[in-house]
Amino acid sequence: MRATLMYGAGDVRVENVPDPVLREPTDGIVRVVRTCICGSDLHPYHTMPASENGSPMGHEFLGVIEDLGAEVTGLTKGDLVVASFAFQDNTCDFCREGVQTSCRRGGFFSTAQAEFVRVPLAAGTLVKLPVGEDSPLVPSLLTLADVYGTGYHAAKRANVNPRTTVTVIGDGAVGLLAVLSAKQLGAEQIILMGRHKARTDLGREYGATDVVAERGEEGIAKVRELTGGDGTHTVLEAVGYKEAYEQALGVVRPGGVISRVGVPQYDEAPIGFSSLFGPNLTLTGGPAPVRAYIDQLLPDVLDGTVNPGKVFDRTVSLDEVPDGYRAMDRREAIKVLIRP
Amino acid sequence: MRATLMYGAGDVRVENVPDPVLREPTDGIVRVVRTCICGSDLHPYHTMPASENGSPMGHEFLGVIEDLGAEVTGLTKGDLVVASFAFQDNTCDFCREGVQTSCRRGGFFSTAQAEFVRVPLAAGTLVKLPVGEDSPLVPSLLTLADVYGTGYHAAKRANVNPRTTVTVIGDGAVGLLAVLSAKQLGAEQIILMGRHKARTDLGREYGATDVVAERGEEGIAKVRELTGGDGTHTVLEAVGYKEAYEQALGVVRPGGVISRVGVPQYDEAPIGFSSLFGPNLTLTGGPAPVRAYIDQLLPDVLDGTVNPGKVFDRTVSLDEVPDGYRAMDRREAIKVLIRP
Repeated sequence: MRATLMYGAGDVRVENVPDPVLREPTDGIVRVVRTCICGSDLHPYHTMPASENGSPMGHEFLGVIEDLGAEVTGLTKGDLVVASFAFQDNTCDFCREGVQTSCRRGGFFSTAQAEFVRVPLAAGTLVKLPVGEDSPLVPSLLTLADVYGTGYHAAKRANVNPRTTVTVIGDGAVGLLAVLSAKQLGAEQIILMGRHKARTDLGREYGATDVVAERGEEGIAKVRELTGGDGTHTVLEAVGYKEAYEQALGVVRPGGVISRVGVPQYDEAPIGFSSLFGPNLTLTGGPAPVRAYIDQLLPDVLDGTVNPGKVFDRTVSLDEVPDGYRAMDRREAIKVLIRP
Repeated sequence: MRATLMYGAGDVRVENVPDPVLREPTDGIVRVVRTCICGSDLHPYHTMPASENGSPMGHEFLGVIEDLGAEVTGLTKGDLVVASFAFQDNTCDFCREGVQTSCRRGGFFSTAQAEFVRVPLAAGTLVKLPVGEDSPLVPSLLTLADVYGTGYHAAKRANVNPRTTVTVIGDGAVGLLAVLSAKQLGAEQIILMGRHKARTDLGREYGATDVVAERGEEGIAKVRELTGGDGTHTVLEAVGYKEAYEQALGVVRPGGVISRVGVPQYDEAPIGFSSLFGPNLTLTGGPAPVRAYIDQLLPDVLDGTVNPGKVFDRTVSLDEVPDGYRAMDRREAIKVLIRP
């Protein structure tokens, strides 16, 4: 089959690799109908050391079950399914506590930008969709694999509700869907920090009440101006750079919550008296256990109440994936859909 | 009056200073019946640069109202009262949101190890006690000023409940009262990390089910052994050193909460993928808004259900306060009560 491999920073290739096969009786094989490129794929795209061995890429996919191991229950060959970007049994104690990303048997996908994917723990990972593979809902349904659930995780972990004001840092797909999630959870003031007009316009459509294009101290001052000087109760950080964390510290209200879903590109950062501790701030977040949210988010997608698939503003074939990475890297596309 | 001043590390003196007077119509003056030395007073005791001007010390006190400004409501001269270690109006939006330590008009006491204290915002800060100043409950009631409310804050912020396992790091008064608080909130497994037997024995009396005397990697291994390898859902960190934070990271279960109430003696620390983010940990805590908890904690103190005052294992006069600091610094006393 054709599959995407990264050989180093900026070096993405689509090559022939062996088709995946069932290895465990709990596996499934999915023919990919749609996959996509994630903002987090840009981190290795910027930093991966060159290597002779390509690393397979991709963790978001929706497709049709081609084959199933003998122990997989609740699914049938031919089902259209979406997978969470992490696989899990969805039955262990961590899964039951809502941290499926820490499942005792789980792991993360990294081979989804391809024609077929082997799915470990298929019964706990694949969710059957009640539409056909040609449904116009497919892009929105694909966001349940990661970006929508990740934006929702940020908002849930921050306990966004009708009494909380919200700042969202980052106008990538996750930031935009954090806006949508905050709106769904009832927030009345949602300030989106981002400087790409096409993106922030979609953010406004999703529910942002204010857009702040400035960054750093200037951006912080702007958010404070919009909030009577105090900042917002919650900050949803969907970038991952240390500057974004510092920005979050600057715009959060005393007693508030910073909820991170951008994968941190740093290790140490300020958490002492003058940053987190003194104002009783809470820092939360992590890789989203999106499996925990799919059932809950699905109905509004199916009935068209929300349209998270609008974050896809470019579609490429599998062989065009390298162009897709370039477009996202240059901010020419918010998120690139791949049609294998 | 006599008052405690610190002139530098290890240099505590008791001297004559002017009696405090009402400055604002919202002030009160309290004659101190009992005050005490706090674990956090040991931080300047170790690090304060020598100075010709002494800094007044102390933030915990219980006493009798001597004088009241014209605008103070709800209190009467002669009332026995306990003060929260921070003063607040207890009416602003931050106070209503439960972060009284961020009150718009508030601040922190620093003159309590003395015969009299001026109390700003007396109506929001002093809580009338239904006992006399000779009541044997006085030491327990004094803990409501800081250490009991601080331990309780750690447990509340961590959302300790009957389904959460708990590790408490630190066997000082706050750590011991975090154990008591976790027990009150229903925790069934409470592991106390501390190595002073007199203290950990009191911890067991307060509800600790296990005591781990080891520190660092060895201590982490021990806690993991006690928890099936996984660590506890919540970690209440009542020390403030970076080593304690690192220990917390080592013993917290994926998806869990680290709740800090030890004043951090560090600024930057690990919060990246391999520490906080990957396992979806939450970091919370801060200076406890103890005013928020006094009404709630008071009944169990008054009826003897709990006896937080047992953390006081030495009593000194005001002139003996320097000895009290030495005893706490040498771990000869858990917490020193001062009878001016």
